[in-house]
Amino acid sequence: MAQFDRLHPADKDDLLVALPQETRQDIIGEMTYQATAKVFEYIDPDKADQVAAPITPRVLADILDQADPDVGADVLRGIHDEQTAQTLEAMTRGHNVVPLLEYADDTAGGLMNPEYLAVSRNLTAVLALDAIRIRARDAEVTSYALVVDEDERLVGHAAIVDLALARDDEVVANLVTDDMVSVSVDTDQEECARIMQRYNLNELPVVDAEGVLHGIIMGDDVLDVLKEEATEDMYRLAGVGGEAVFGPLSGAVKSRLPWLGVNLATAFLAALAIGLFETTIGRVVALAVLLPLVTSQGGMGGIQTLTLAVRSMALGELPSAQGMKLVSRELMLGAAHGLLFGLLVGIAAYAWKGDYMLGVVLAIAMLCNMVIAGLTGAGVPLLLRKAGQDPAVSSAVFITTFTDIMGILLFLGIATAVIERLG
Amino acid sequence: MAQFDRLHPADKDDLLVALPQETRQDIIGEMTYQATAKVFEYIDPDKADQVAAPITPRVLADILDQADPDVGADVLRGIHDEQTAQTLEAMTRGHNVVPLLEYADDTAGGLMNPEYLAVSRNLTAVLALDAIRIRARDAEVTSYALVVDEDERLVGHAAIVDLALARDDEVVANLVTDDMVSVSVDTDQEECARIMQRYNLNELPVVDAEGVLHGIIMGDDVLDVLKEEATEDMYRLAGVGGEAVFGPLSGAVKSRLPWLGVNLATAFLAALAIGLFETTIGRVVALAVLLPLVTSQGGMGGIQTLTLAVRSMALGELPSAQGMKLVSRELMLGAAHGLLFGLLVGIAAYAWKGDYMLGVVLAIAMLCNMVIAGLTGAGVPLLLRKAGQDPAVSSAVFITTFTDIMGILLFLGIATAVIERLG
Repeated sequence: MAQFDRLHPADKDDLLVALPQETRQDIIGEMTYQATAKVFEYIDPDKADQVAAPITPRVLADILDQADPDVGADVLRGIHDEQTAQTLEAMTRGHNVVPLLEYADDTAGGLMNPEYLAVSRNLTAVLALDAIRIRARDAEVTSYALVVDEDERLVGHAAIVDLALARDDEVVANLVTDDMVSVSVDTDQEECARIMQRYNLNELPVVDAEGVLHGIIMGDDVLDVLKEEATEDMYRLAGVGGEAVFGPLSGAVKSRLPWLGVNLATAFLAALAIGLFETTIGRVVALAVLLPLVTSQGGMGGIQTLTLAVRSMALGELPSAQGMKLVSRELMLGAAHGLLFGLLVGIAAYAWKGDYMLGVVLAIAMLCNMVIAGLTGAGVPLLLRKAGQDPAVSSAVFITTFTDIMGILLFLGIATAVIERLG
Repeated sequence: MAQFDRLHPADKDDLLVALPQETRQDIIGEMTYQATAKVFEYIDPDKADQVAAPITPRVLADILDQADPDVGADVLRGIHDEQTAQTLEAMTRGHNVVPLLEYADDTAGGLMNPEYLAVSRNLTAVLALDAIRIRARDAEVTSYALVVDEDERLVGHAAIVDLALARDDEVVANLVTDDMVSVSVDTDQEECARIMQRYNLNELPVVDAEGVLHGIIMGDDVLDVLKEEATEDMYRLAGVGGEAVFGPLSGAVKSRLPWLGVNLATAFLAALAIGLFETTIGRVVALAVLLPLVTSQGGMGGIQTLTLAVRSMALGELPSAQGMKLVSRELMLGAAHGLLFGLLVGIAAYAWKGDYMLGVVLAIAMLCNMVIAGLTGAGVPLLLRKAGQDPAVSSAVFITTFTDIMGILLFLGIATAVIERLG
């Protein structure tokens, strides 16, 4: 226990989550409320319920009274409604947490800390500094104080150093810098992260529709967001759901099975497409041998374009207005790659079977399929976004299916058309 | 121009990079040194050279004298050596930039700002506050001041509020919190980002091997790092190099062609594998039709496992010691999925062709290939990491090739072995 006490709260939290429930409760029973509150500050919100659920509302209330309101809100969102209500009732600082529970946890409102440093623009510098000293214990402290008007609307910020160096009777309004970036309470958390990253901000104020200040987001809050969003996109592209690496096996099956199912269905479509040309393959078996060249290369080209498109959208580097520019760019690239690889495999096929026509058919199919790969790799995520869908949702399965089937239809279709001159 | 002046520096930077070189030089010619310095602060380091290269060393020196040293170092790293040397010579604050140029730009040393707030632990609170006031204009200001000993070694930090509220003759040493996380100058930037994210830090001090303080990394510095690293992993998995969405076409070809080439080579291997069984396919053409079911499903399963493994490694959630645990977990999942889908496609094939044996061969090949997919999807990135290689480097191509070829060998191999009982 003495050893446990010496750990950093972030490490304690990992240990607690990993422990069996009984041991965990014993340890929490011996920790001070403040130490437990610290642990909740570092815990992954998705795992907070595991630790919080067995704690009685009475004790949980005392613990959360010691924590930042945004931490309290994260914990309360995770446990069931009855425990939440009882805990809130027992808390002395519950009124700070209640408004936060109204915001979705993936918005600026859910991310922000409602305890910030703000001073009225009508104060004198010396009074403003006093106000800051009093609030500084509870609030997120930065080198700037936010400045609000009579109606609590954000007007800008003032450097604390400027306040300290100003004449005592200087009014805060004269020290305000007003070129401030802020977001609305319902701004998506990913957008908040993008803004802070773009404008190199360590803090981002959150306001409502009237411009009234409600809280502040700090740099470390969005680090988690960036990490999660990147993981999410990566997993979605690959058809893995919200899976943890050593989570329960049932969760892994649940996350992967749907996409394996979709993939199988699409593979059936590919099989059906090949099935259309059974007679052709029966006459020229070399076609079955060469087919993977067309489908595999199309799939790879499609995935490259798709990955670039999805990631660029996530980074905000691909505005809707530039969609057509991307499509035509990828079309050109697909044509260039298709020409190159078409020539290459055409010559190789001719060298292998000594059949001039076989090489021509393979080259044309390869060229067309690479162009199609570029078009769909760029077009599908753009269309998904336009339709209000997540462009990353397993687009990879659809792209590779489409290039597979188009490759089959092109290669075997052209071969069937010129079958008399093959073999 | 008046409109341009009103833009946020981060937006000016986007515009400047997008403009043709001549217009850009005209605009920079009309901007104040300070305004240009601001723009450099927000520019992507990879693009800074485009803007900086045409500026004469004399003028560039005046501009960079107005910028943070880490910004200066980023710009100077991008332009060619002669221009760098001349610019440094002309700078009055060049001595702050020179040490930074010695650090690789993907380490803590390359990321940090060398101008930080630090006070000696022997000062009294009132003297420390004075020192902070004087330094506060140039340094990264936070709500804490770093505290150093006589030899400039980091000993902890003190809240500025505590300094302000302390008795005038209180020594800083008594106000220090010493449970501080710091990193070494050569710590990888990704590791810095991970530490700040894990411990919810808004600032991270950087020290050398002797513990001497050299600089500080702020939350907004690592936002870029997190973004870049996630993009890099995603692109590597898909075989796209360091490509920008609307970068030059030649760059896109250079980034994708190598992996398309690798993919084609692997597709040739698959074609060769199928070629081994030309006679078998000639006798039972249905085998060519059903083959994509085995290869596609294996590829999908492999990619799912691979993506999970690579991302977990990047997030530090998959320590080497747990490698075997992952492999056996994925083996089990592969077997479960293989059994399920094997039964499904086996029955479907039997229903289609009325050939009992065809269904059995298909089911067995599917089961074995899904197990192989799980093993390689987990094993390949683990082995790459063990060999000191980047586990993300286009592992996807290798995994899908391997499952393709194994699927072909298994399905057509078993079919050949029982060919007398097929069809």
